[in-house]
Amino acid sequence: GAHGKERSPNSHCTRCPISSQSPGDSKVVEDFRRRLKYFFMNPCEKYRARGRKPWKLMLQILKIAIITFQLVSFGLSNEMMVTFKEENLMVFKHLFLKEYKDQRVDRYAVYTKTDVYGHIYYVIDRNLTVGNHAYEKIEGEYTPLTLCQEFFRKGSISPGNDTFDIDPHVDKECISVYPLEPLENKTLSRDINFSLDFKRLLSVNIYLTLKAINLQTVRHHELPDCYAFSIIVGAGKNNHLLLFDSFVILACFTSLILCTRSVYKGSQLQFHYTAFFHTYFGKTVPWSERMEFVNGWYILIIVSDTLTIAGSALKIGIQTKDLTNYDVCSILLGTSTMLVWVGVIRYLGFFKKYNILILALRAAIPNVIRFSCCAGLIYLGYCFCGWIVLGPYHEKFRTLDKVTECLFSLINGDDLYSTFQKMREKRYMVWLFSRLYLYSFLSLFIYMVLSLFIALITDTYETIKVSFCINMA
Amino acid sequence: GAHGKERSPNSHCTRCPISSQSPGDSKVVEDFRRRLKYFFMNPCEKYRARGRKPWKLMLQILKIAIITFQLVSFGLSNEMMVTFKEENLMVFKHLFLKEYKDQRVDRYAVYTKTDVYGHIYYVIDRNLTVGNHAYEKIEGEYTPLTLCQEFFRKGSISPGNDTFDIDPHVDKECISVYPLEPLENKTLSRDINFSLDFKRLLSVNIYLTLKAINLQTVRHHELPDCYAFSIIVGAGKNNHLLLFDSFVILACFTSLILCTRSVYKGSQLQFHYTAFFHTYFGKTVPWSERMEFVNGWYILIIVSDTLTIAGSALKIGIQTKDLTNYDVCSILLGTSTMLVWVGVIRYLGFFKKYNILILALRAAIPNVIRFSCCAGLIYLGYCFCGWIVLGPYHEKFRTLDKVTECLFSLINGDDLYSTFQKMREKRYMVWLFSRLYLYSFLSLFIYMVLSLFIALITDTYETIKVSFCINMA
Amino acid sequence: GAHGKERSPNSHCTRCPISSQSPGDSKVVEDFRRRLKYFFMNPCEKYRARGRKPWKLMLQILKIAIITFQLVSFGLSNEMMVTFKEENLMVFKHLFLKEYKDQRVDRYAVYTKTDVYGHIYYVIDRNLTVGNHAYEKIEGEYTPLTLCQEFFRKGSISPGNDTFDIDPHVDKECISVYPLEPLENKTLSRDINFSLDFKRLLSVNIYLTLKAINLQTVRHHELPDCYAFSIIVGAGKNNHLLLFDSFVILACFTSLILCTRSVYKGSQLQFHYTAFFHTYFGKTVPWSERMEFVNGWYILIIVSDTLTIAGSALKIGIQTKDLTNYDVCSILLGTSTMLVWVGVIRYLGFFKKYNILILALRAAIPNVIRFSCCAGLIYLGYCFCGWIVLGPYHEKFRTLDKVTECLFSLINGDDLYSTFQKMREKRYMVWLFSRLYLYSFLSLFIYMVLSLFIALITDTYETIKVSFCINMA
Amino acid sequence: GAHGKERSPNSHCTRCPISSQSPGDSKVVEDFRRRLKYFFMNPCEKYRARGRKPWKLMLQILKIAIITFQLVSFGLSNEMMVTFKEENLMVFKHLFLKEYKDQRVDRYAVYTKTDVYGHIYYVIDRNLTVGNHAYEKIEGEYTPLTLCQEFFRKGSISPGNDTFDIDPHVDKECISVYPLEPLENKTLSRDINFSLDFKRLLSVNIYLTLKAINLQTVRHHELPDCYAFSIIVGAGKNNHLLLFDSFVILACFTSLILCTRSVYKGSQLQFHYTAFFHTYFGKTVPWSERMEFVNGWYILIIVSDTLTIAGSALKIGIQTKDLTNYDVCSILLGTSTMLVWVGVIRYLGFFKKYNILILALRAAIPNVIRFSCCAGLIYLGYCFCGWIVLGPYHEKFRTLDKVTECLFSLINGDDLYSTFQKMREKRYMVWLFSRLYLYSFLSLFIYMVLSLFIALITDTYETIKVSFCINMA
Repeated sequence: GAHGKERSPNSHCTRCPISSQSPGDSKVVEDFRRRLKYFFMNPCEKYRARGRKPWKLMLQILKIAIITFQLVSFGLSNEMMVTFKEENLMVFKHLFLKEYKDQRVDRYAVYTKTDVYGHIYYVIDRNLTVGNHAYEKIEGEYTPLTLCQEFFRKGSISPGNDTFDIDPHVDKECISVYPLEPLENKTLSRDINFSLDFKRLLSVNIYLTLKAINLQTVRHHELPDCYAFSIIVGAGKNNHLLLFDSFVILACFTSLILCTRSVYKGSQLQFHYTAFFHTYFGKTVPWSERMEFVNGWYILIIVSDTLTIAGSALKIGIQTKDLTNYDVCSILLGTSTMLVWVGVIRYLGFFKKYNILILALRAAIPNVIRFSCCAGLIYLGYCFCGWIVLGPYHEKFRTLDKVTECLFSLINGDDLYSTFQKMREKRYMVWLFSRLYLYSFLSLFIYMVLSLFIALITDTYETIKVSFCINMA
Repeated sequence: GAHGKERSPNSHCTRCPISSQSPGDSKVVEDFRRRLKYFFMNPCEKYRARGRKPWKLMLQILKIAIITFQLVSFGLSNEMMVTFKEENLMVFKHLFLKEYKDQRVDRYAVYTKTDVYGHIYYVIDRNLTVGNHAYEKIEGEYTPLTLCQEFFRKGSISPGNDTFDIDPHVDKECISVYPLEPLENKTLSRDINFSLDFKRLLSVNIYLTLKAINLQTVRHHELPDCYAFSIIVGAGKNNHLLLFDSFVILACFTSLILCTRSVYKGSQLQFHYTAFFHTYFGKTVPWSERMEFVNGWYILIIVSDTLTIAGSALKIGIQTKDLTNYDVCSILLGTSTMLVWVGVIRYLGFFKKYNILILALRAAIPNVIRFSCCAGLIYLGYCFCGWIVLGPYHEKFRTLDKVTECLFSLINGDDLYSTFQKMREKRYMVWLFSRLYLYSFLSLFIYMVLSLFIALITDTYETIKVSFCINMA
Repeated sequence: GAHGKERSPNSHCTRCPISSQSPGDSKVVEDFRRRLKYFFMNPCEKYRARGRKPWKLMLQILKIAIITFQLVSFGLSNEMMVTFKEENLMVFKHLFLKEYKDQRVDRYAVYTKTDVYGHIYYVIDRNLTVGNHAYEKIEGEYTPLTLCQEFFRKGSISPGNDTFDIDPHVDKECISVYPLEPLENKTLSRDINFSLDFKRLLSVNIYLTLKAINLQTVRHHELPDCYAFSIIVGAGKNNHLLLFDSFVILACFTSLILCTRSVYKGSQLQFHYTAFFHTYFGKTVPWSERMEFVNGWYILIIVSDTLTIAGSALKIGIQTKDLTNYDVCSILLGTSTMLVWVGVIRYLGFFKKYNILILALRAAIPNVIRFSCCAGLIYLGYCFCGWIVLGPYHEKFRTLDKVTECLFSLINGDDLYSTFQKMREKRYMVWLFSRLYLYSFLSLFIYMVLSLFIALITDTYETIKVSFCINMA
Repeated sequence: GAHGKERSPNSHCTRCPISSQSPGDSKVVEDFRRRLKYFFMNPCEKYRARGRKPWKLMLQILKIAIITFQLVSFGLSNEMMVTFKEENLMVFKHLFLKEYKDQRVDRYAVYTKTDVYGHIYYVIDRNLTVGNHAYEKIEGEYTPLTLCQEFFRKGSISPGNDTFDIDPHVDKECISVYPLEPLENKTLSRDINFSLDFKRLLSVNIYLTLKAINLQTVRHHELPDCYAFSIIVGAGKNNHLLLFDSFVILACFTSLILCTRSVYKGSQLQFHYTAFFHTYFGKTVPWSERMEFVNGWYILIIVSDTLTIAGSALKIGIQTKDLTNYDVCSILLGTSTMLVWVGVIRYLGFFKKYNILILALRAAIPNVIRFSCCAGLIYLGYCFCGWIVLGPYHEKFRTLDKVTECLFSLINGDDLYSTFQKMREKRYMVWLFSRLYLYSFLSLFIYMVLSLFIALITDTYETIKVSFCINMA
């Protein structure tokens, strides 16, 4: 089997004669050995040994093709939708926000009372002109624009003498404004009577519903999507590809059943082997040897298939029943496709020279995890320390997860200079601390931890190469 | 003990039989050996050997939990405060600075006399409108806004014919302006008589005091903080968590005492051992062997505990007695938390496979420091050279500490291209020098120094692995 | 020959006596051996052995010089042209686009109907003033400015109630506007009758033709280029260097013939050798040994020469016959020059200590490719997964090739922090997924894959060094 | 001597008994051996052997201190001057350039005839108001502002029909404008009669002279600098530190003489040794052994001293005789200080464990240079290819030295993503080529070349460590 081969290709190695059994084995033992040997063969060897067609292998290859196709078509249609949404968002900002400008720093704030009123009236008075947008019409009548303010139920604050009296319950008050026909040349805001109590005010929101048709799809000879923009911009609807999704589910289901059967057969054989071993040698089989009967690649395929089935089912649901749980669907499909592609490494492992590399990586993992624990503790210590000391003075150390990301970026050589510079011109003690902190952290992680990682993996590779007697040069 | 184990796990190694003593040892020697052995056991082994409960270990684990909790709660409350302060700073800039715009280049300067007057009158005439801010009131009356100018006592400068006559003593002149009630619709600046003598002028400052209440905390059901914004924005006050801080101090104090006792016992044993060794073998114990009785981890815990106690005491002081030494407090608490987390590595060292990694890092440190000295000299030479030659032409080489940071960033792969580009279009000789300088520096440090670091650590790891007879694969 | 030497310098190595034949070889064998030996000599050795002048070597060195000269002169003239084009583009934007500003975000959009008309009339009314530009004149008369709109043949869209009725055929409608003499002080737009049907509109284009003369070349005593700017800015014309290009073609053609002859002779010798081997030893020559007769460097020279000839021919075509296939020409010339320079490594390989490095790189390639396959599969999996899940929320994951480039940049330490930050403030599940995704991907690739690459190449270098008995220190 | 010790510390190594001579050496030999031994001792050993005080060593240490002090004081005064110049430049831009704004993209261009006249009149009408600036006065009268235009002597260009007739001689025409007293409230531009011939125009320049006094130095109790801003902003003058510079020159001169003497003595000893060797053994001394008599560190000190003396002399010249060759001076002083600091490594080399690291670096250099040659050829090939193909489409590939810098940055992990992105939305063939180009270049250099560097240096380090029998762990 592929799996056993990967771990102990003893037959190729003259220095490790452990597997060669004494000649006095009875026929039962010989039979069991043959069964074991067949179990641990890879598909090609099975075909050569007993002529069994590698159906499972073919199914997997087919699966890779169709799952990738499904993902790509899903991704492309999403790409078009997202672009349409972003362009519209940009248009809405320019249409409804007074004096809005495209800037790198995307801050848009109002600082005085009169400005607040000015901006609200501006929104109300806009009429849509360019593009295929229109206010929603329900039964021939435009849906109104809604203007709401949230405020504390009761509140009197006088910061001047440090006192306040607030009822923390939040009230909400809304008024509706009906849009005019585009042709009418007058402004709505004149007729509105609306005042804000700034002392108690928490937030002001304006809700309106627009509709648009994505005509770009007409050129691609697809059915155009209709979008209803409300506060949460709604998702589009595609009415095709349902059949293909069902086919994907079918293929994955078949693969799932076949792999589960193999795992089941493996565990059965393991029980027989344990019993057999106990009978003949009077010893129990060690745990590590038992685990060799469970093929890790099958587990990977089972997980991947389960995710694909769940994801495809959800995708059908989204396209037919107006579910909008897009995120879960994409996470399921994305993860499964990733696993499917990682699984292809298994087939590369059938070649000896590829196998050594995969084994080296696998053998290095326990050491890498152990070392990551040690390094992780120092990392965590630095995170806490940086957060509490530099947080108030440095944008990148403001929250704990920002610190984690910032330090991770730093040890990989990103944004060092700007991180150093942003601490400039603060009080001297904090400035000095930040220098000690950054230089010590970076020297430690870039030079010592990274080098030890390289030492660990180089060592593991050498060990694996020697123990498998393989000449790679 | 943990410490001896870490350095000489000879018992596991058949190739190093040095520690096995000859059988003819007398009973006294045997007794002393047993004492020594017990001393160098780790907590788990001590529990197994004599049933001693690992109280100290438990205390340390408890300490990690409560110190981390203390730090996180401190950090979160600071986060909220800093955000509030920054938002207010932004609001104040928009309110009080004429024609202020959010920009990436945060420069705000005035270039003509009329502009200077214009900007000063603008500040005076602003009335606060949005947000929970108010001018400070003392005994029912608003505190005045103060407008001050600093100038040389006497001065006549005529750059036109290269002469000046200046009395370098600096005088200060202030006038007070009382704010109007928000309802009054007139401007203050009309009534002010204020003129600047630009020839002698050094600086103009306007001082005003505002108060605000952070209502965001009301929603989190905490007591809101009151802030008094003067020139240095004041710190907020929290009146809870005092009890918890006291508990932290108590735990750290207990830990501090226990560890000091252990260190004391270690040094006592070391004196006995030295005397004993001298008596029986007639030789003095080498210094390196004596140092093994001092457990480095205990020293780390003692330092960390001292810092925590000082930090927590200061924190209580800040919260009760209006101390505002926030920076010292956060540096103390942050450093101690970092050390506590780094200390957890000790417990990982109880497992053999983790231990090897920690030992490799520790063994590599002397070589790394030695090599850093050599590399540091070359680095220093480049710093001086870059500062003096490129300083006048390149923003990043302007000051010596900027050069240090810039070169450190460069060797870790940050901002190379932009550093190269900023030297463009200067006179040819300097341009050529900058190229030689940067290419030589980068090639030397990225390719040679970094590689030698890797060589050093790989070599140390191999040495440690061989000498401890541990198979990591 | 250079080639054989590179692979088996057995004569220098006392430990590998395979090549020393038994003394009983007949004269035929001895003769054939001498022929083989001569074939595998490098040019210097051939000169020393039989006095053959290294004409081919000299030709190659000449070729490197003239090809590099050709490329540099081609590049410099292109540089001047591109700068002129870019400066003019900038001028045109400022002249013809209303309220155009130099910005980092190069977006220029119009959001309302009145703005659309305003911008169109602005273009029409501009008269050229500064710089050496003029409207094209054909037979004494200015060519007109053309204003075209594209729209669906029939279309009624009402997004308000989700319906549309569109004939997807696209119609185009143009009007011509003749420019006025620069002296006339009136605006053209007043006389134009032009209206857009926004419901059906797809695009509006304005075409005009300008001419300019690049006077900068006058100062360099070159013939100035004339440019005709139409929608696609036309390429300039140089009328010299034709002779030099022909010379390059000639040199490359000679080199091409000589190298083809050598390859032919090599394959002939290989056939003789195979026959000879079969006759004397009764064995067939293995495939790998046969391949040693084909000198890889000659193949490289042949490919490079072919590309140079094609590129130079195309370049002559561009300069004489108004072909504008600039891209193909530059790709051909660029690639060939690159290959020529890479080919110089062959001559360095004549020195033994250089050779070892080249051999180490060559020996590492198969392993590197094998390992890249494995790593590539995991990489591909991550690409698909990132595209589908993060695509809608992150600019850098929008299209599949952007994902590839982004992940490639990340593992080389570029833009980590900003990639992390751009995922902020999205819904929690996607945020969490993005963190898991990025941390796992980066840890895997930066620490494990890169380290294994280093292990592979270090190992190959050691192997090569040992097997060639060369002391490098 | 230090030098011999560094190369062959054979005495510490039991495995290399080559240096132990046969016992039958005559007294002459023994004497010569003692002389040689003394020559190759380091200062400390010389002191221990014959009690010679290490005067030279002390002089070097003194030199390091004073040169560093000289450099730091020079650098600090330059820093202040540069800041003053930059702030004034900023002020001048805001004062004299119409509608100038602080921007990241520092482009300031004018596109129409009327704008050109507008901007020129704006400069003329400005009167200085804030800051210590004044127009230069010569003999009580303001120096005039000069307005010059350069144009071709004769020129008629009609791009419309591709013809031009130009006399390439350039004429220059200037007019003088006298500034008004600051009090007069009228504009100068009304009285000026000035017209530009745009067809023939090459450039327009306005020259004016301002003076300013840097009063910031008054506060530091230094003599203030006077600056004359003309087109090239003049350098300031300091009248102190002359004595110190002379002292530096003296110290360096002494050191220079002592080192030259040592080198001379070394070469004399080498001649004796060669003669002696020839007499007794009848063999000539190999070249490599001869070179050991020339101490590389002395050469470094001689070079550094020469540079310091030249630099200090120039610095005195700048401060006394109004030379403004600041760049040469700073390059001389900067380079010498760098060499002095690098020279400190020599003293670290007196300790054995430091020495090994220095030796490893030195031993690796030949291999690194050899390998850099090979890698450099591939690099050069890529540079040419990228320049010619991508130059017209990508800002970073525009000129050959930009390409070099861009590729160098890329292989060190800088700006990868943005380099990829800037090629977007060009014609497909070039886009595809750029991808192939970048991916192949980066994979080759980041993974293969860098790894081989690490392999080379790791290997050298191991070799050195083994051959010097030093245990570093």
